[in-house]
Amino acid sequence: MKPGDLTEAVAAVLAAVEAAEGRLAPKKRAVIEAALLCFAETGYAATSTRSIAHRAGVAEATIFRHFGTKADLLLRLVRPVAARLIQPGLVEAQEIFAETEGNLEAKIARMMTARLAFADRYAPLVRILLQELPVNPELHGLLQDSVIGGLIRFLDIALGEEIAQGRLRPIPAPRFLRILASMLIGYWIARSMVAPGEWDDEAEIALMAGLLARGLKP
Amino acid sequence: MKPGDLTEAVAAVLAAVEAAEGRLAPKKRAVIEAALLCFAETGYAATSTRSIAHRAGVAEATIFRHFGTKADLLLRLVRPVAARLIQPGLVEAQEIFAETEGNLEAKIARMMTARLAFADRYAPLVRILLQELPVNPELHGLLQDSVIGGLIRFLDIALGEEIAQGRLRPIPAPRFLRILASMLIGYWIARSMVAPGEWDDEAEIALMAGLLARGLKP
Repeated sequence: MKPGDLTEAVAAVLAAVEAAEGRLAPKKRAVIEAALLCFAETGYAATSTRSIAHRAGVAEATIFRHFGTKADLLLRLVRPVAARLIQPGLVEAQEIFAETEGNLEAKIARMMTARLAFADRYAPLVRILLQELPVNPELHGLLQDSVIGGLIRFLDIALGEEIAQGRLRPIPAPRFLRILASMLIGYWIARSMVAPGEWDDEAEIALMAGLLARGLKP
Repeated sequence: MKPGDLTEAVAAVLAAVEAAEGRLAPKKRAVIEAALLCFAETGYAATSTRSIAHRAGVAEATIFRHFGTKADLLLRLVRPVAARLIQPGLVEAQEIFAETEGNLEAKIARMMTARLAFADRYAPLVRILLQELPVNPELHGLLQDSVIGGLIRFLDIALGEEIAQGRLRPIPAPRFLRILASMLIGYWIARSMVAPGEWDDEAEIALMAGLLARGLKP
């Protein structure tokens, strides 16, 4: 799937919300769909609850009653997607790191490939997060609790093992995560937003994973 | 200077604009100052030209007459600051890379330290750029022409020399720039926006520069 496919991303987000909250009533479903489309097209900050209500074909009061503020609505979209990011992502990363065969470079490359596919799947929401995360403390708090905390606990164990085996320079998990995530997000932004076109994901990931693995060797 | 010092950043942006355009008439100066304050506090997307006019104490028509649209106004702030980023930054980077003493790690660390100080100086504008750059093709075009193109031409030469001397794995300049910039921006976001607090810049830069230099060794 190519990043930016709005229809599929809307379906993916709705599926994540329904997996978490159960089947949505038609009006609620319409509001969530309209909110994601408006945020994706106009940006979160420039979208009003009035325009979401108009697009969803409901009264603005319906939004406030069922979802609270615009900020609450954003969190309502993000929470279930974050849950889908963290749980399968952690299970998968644990499997990758638990394998004895495969060097660190190959393990990092596999993690990167999986996260890139995830970002493509939820591209419009990822874009909103990239814009809002640095300036939205509530959103940052939510992701800190539901994603970053879990990732760091996992990486502490996985990296601790690599460090103990002498395959990795001692590096604190939060720094490793920051550097890995920055590189991957920078690549995703370049490829899907700044200069969309033909990118060779496999070669680019090999470059980044190789750099990280060699750079972190003892 | 700590990032986020709005008053000093406004003064720095105004100085950059006046260095490029000559002394500003009081009304124009007031509009630029008000625009930067509004963008920094409310975000670019959520700021209206009406609110800028109100804060500057001018009629909204004055903004349109002198500056065009809100997008034009943003470019008017960014252009001179980008010019200040590129020229002294390139001269300095050329000096750093031309020195024969000092290994690649130390050179990268010095470049990172200088760029971090620049980002701190213009922090509110950098924040606006980080939010707008991925979704604003005009802004991206401007930076592509005025900053990224020049940086890549310079890096082509500097890296070519390091590669020819056998001190660096062959890496295309755009990829090197993307990885370096992603790491540095990721660190700047963590330190000044996501988790402000006590950060040891020297240690963090040493970690990133060491990782890059080791990772890029032949």
